[in-house]
Amino acid sequence: ATTISGQAKKLTIGLIPADGIGKEVIPGARQVLEALPNIGVDSPSFNFINLDAGFEYFQKNGTALSEKTLEIMKNECDGALFGAVSSPSHKVAGYSSPIVAMRKHLDLYANVRPVVSVASEKDFSQKHVDILIIRENTECLYVKQERQTTDESTGLKVAWAERKISEYASRRCGKMAFEMALGRDKFRQNIPLEKRFWKGKPKVTIVHKSNVLSITDGLWRETVRSVKENDHKYDSVDMEEQLVDSMVYRLFREPHYFDVVVAPNMYGDIISDGAAALVGSLGVVPSANVGDKFVMGEPVHGSAPDIAGQNKANPIAAIRSAGLLLEHMGFHQQALHIYNAVDEVLRRGEYLTPDLGGRATTQQVVDAVIKLIQ
Amino acid sequence: ATTISGQAKKLTIGLIPADGIGKEVIPGARQVLEALPNIGVDSPSFNFINLDAGFEYFQKNGTALSEKTLEIMKNECDGALFGAVSSPSHKVAGYSSPIVAMRKHLDLYANVRPVVSVASEKDFSQKHVDILIIRENTECLYVKQERQTTDESTGLKVAWAERKISEYASRRCGKMAFEMALGRDKFRQNIPLEKRFWKGKPKVTIVHKSNVLSITDGLWRETVRSVKENDHKYDSVDMEEQLVDSMVYRLFREPHYFDVVVAPNMYGDIISDGAAALVGSLGVVPSANVGDKFVMGEPVHGSAPDIAGQNKANPIAAIRSAGLLLEHMGFHQQALHIYNAVDEVLRRGEYLTPDLGGRATTQQVVDAVIKLIQ
Ligand SMILES: CC(C)[C@H](C(=O)O)[C@@H](O)C(=O)O
Ligand SMILES: CC(C)[C@H](C(=O)O)[C@@H](O)C(=O)O
Repeated sequence: ATTISGQAKKLTIGLIPADGIGKEVIPGARQVLEALPNIGVDSPSFNFINLDAGFEYFQKNGTALSEKTLEIMKNECDGALFGAVSSPSHKVAGYSSPIVAMRKHLDLYANVRPVVSVASEKDFSQKHVDILIIRENTECLYVKQERQTTDESTGLKVAWAERKISEYASRRCGKMAFEMALGRDKFRQNIPLEKRFWKGKPKVTIVHKSNVLSITDGLWRETVRSVKENDHKYDSVDMEEQLVDSMVYRLFREPHYFDVVVAPNMYGDIISDGAAALVGSLGVVPSANVGDKFVMGEPVHGSAPDIAGQNKANPIAAIRSAGLLLEHMGFHQQALHIYNAVDEVLRRGEYLTPDLGGRATTQQVVDAVIKLIQ
Repeated sequence: ATTISGQAKKLTIGLIPADGIGKEVIPGARQVLEALPNIGVDSPSFNFINLDAGFEYFQKNGTALSEKTLEIMKNECDGALFGAVSSPSHKVAGYSSPIVAMRKHLDLYANVRPVVSVASEKDFSQKHVDILIIRENTECLYVKQERQTTDESTGLKVAWAERKISEYASRRCGKMAFEMALGRDKFRQNIPLEKRFWKGKPKVTIVHKSNVLSITDGLWRETVRSVKENDHKYDSVDMEEQLVDSMVYRLFREPHYFDVVVAPNMYGDIISDGAAALVGSLGVVPSANVGDKFVMGEPVHGSAPDIAGQNKANPIAAIRSAGLLLEHMGFHQQALHIYNAVDEVLRRGEYLTPDLGGRATTQQVVDAVIKLIQ
């Protein structure tokens, strides 16, 4: 649906705020996209389509994600921004997470999660962190093939879930990791050496637990390794491995040890929340669900029902997710424009939401970002 | 095999140093047990049996754990101390982790992992932590039911692992968590309120990911919840839940929020390494693999091949594991004696191994502990 009108591309973006603070941060991210100035000839303009999904939607309509929403995303949108989804506090028959379904149906096979600390006057981050987590996004325990049986001798319940790891998915996810490692390295070349946080060769860390899961994580590990081993393009990228338990330990102890980290779905989910804790708040960590044909930005945080509707949710993760959306659609300059404005807002520390120790409202942070990008 | 000779019990303990630094820290822990003075009439004396297992053993004998070792543990030992096992850096046909096999064959269904920071002069722990992690120890992805298939249309490999969660295992693990929560609470009553770290009601946090794994983690969650809901004995214990990703986030941000944490096997593995990062080093975190008939102490750290054989491994995790072994065999006073001596060594900060920023050798730390328990 990308159209060229005059010189500017018109991008159609689906907006799916879903539940809780998703309804506050997605409109904030939209305002930032709308405020983007023209940079160069390829500056896009935007057309937004509001779409429904989520737990609240499920409660009214009996489904958390309608066929129609999926169809519109596939047929009419160039990309999307998703907010956050609430999880029912008790088991609810028929409910299934819409975000997991969208990742699958739109084949968004890698979840790209940059976790970066920013020097600010308030210095809410204890250690310097600049990690890119690439999370496999379509399989592992997320295939949701579960069943319940009964132990015949005791009458007690036994439940089983299948964990799938395929060569196909592992390879494309691994490839994304090595590509992004090269991309980060190229980007760093523009930064003076003394200001560069990561000074060495680019590095990809492969996370697994093949000491226990020798077949599934064994396949994951060998397949990701083979991406580098079979392509001289990646000769300049270092490769190392961490068992998932050591990974979390080391992440807390030496976050500066990591550049790009690639992990199966569930480990990636856990590691990215862990990394978020190192940079002050989940409220600043964005992600992009990336496929070959579609990208969907999504803050890493949840729907935070405890603060929903109070205009105090941190919109930065959503705004950065809008930046990632642009970046992965090929609009690098525009994305950088957003990232730099956000970094500057954090550095100044004047407008920070309560999760970062400030007292600003969601809208004040959005306004502060907009002021800096114009 | 517990025998009463005169007034003192004679305990037979299997020692399985296994690989790497296991060979240094287990002899250290043994020395501490041997140095325990007589406290009261039930003070045990010890008889040790050296047993083999591990990756090195596998390389020589084609198996990582012999039937004989298992038989001796079952038939001749009252308990055991395990060191650490190396993981092969590439897939090795026929190799399977001996620690996972022992937990299963001896039905050691709960892995009890206390993670505690100690105020020391060097203050290597940033935040105050006093968490007891109870990790389910027999199932989840650790059932190791894996298979590899081929995708017929592409010829590419697809691997599958089964994750098992049973009502039976979840219940007894949950019960252990609530029992230990009561036990900790009782113990705290002896500490003056102003010196107590945890001042509120005891609390059990249930970790799961039932927003994705509604059947397996749903069963885990409901079963653990029902332990409290069906027994007034636990009325005084608070119960709450955390999704595993939020758990790791919150663990880093607010470790003082947690008292007892109970988790399925794999989450428990990851969380306990994460918690260890908060208390200075994996080298101080012990565990006990607990069953109804047998207990095996085991430091949480690995075999650390990079520092093996250099007499600089931290023996504290192994020494504390010997304490846990005694505690779970019913020798509370003796266990406390060990814990207090270790705490004092850490507090003084005079003999610390390099992982804690010191320069002491393994033996110096062992000697310092022994000096304080006698
Ligand atoms: C809401 C939940 C299903 C989701 C996930 O586990 O992927 C979330 O934690 C995330 O990280 O996007
Ligand atoms: C060595 C490995 C199989 C083991 C595990 O995953 O249980 C270890 O990490 C542990 O925590 O005891």
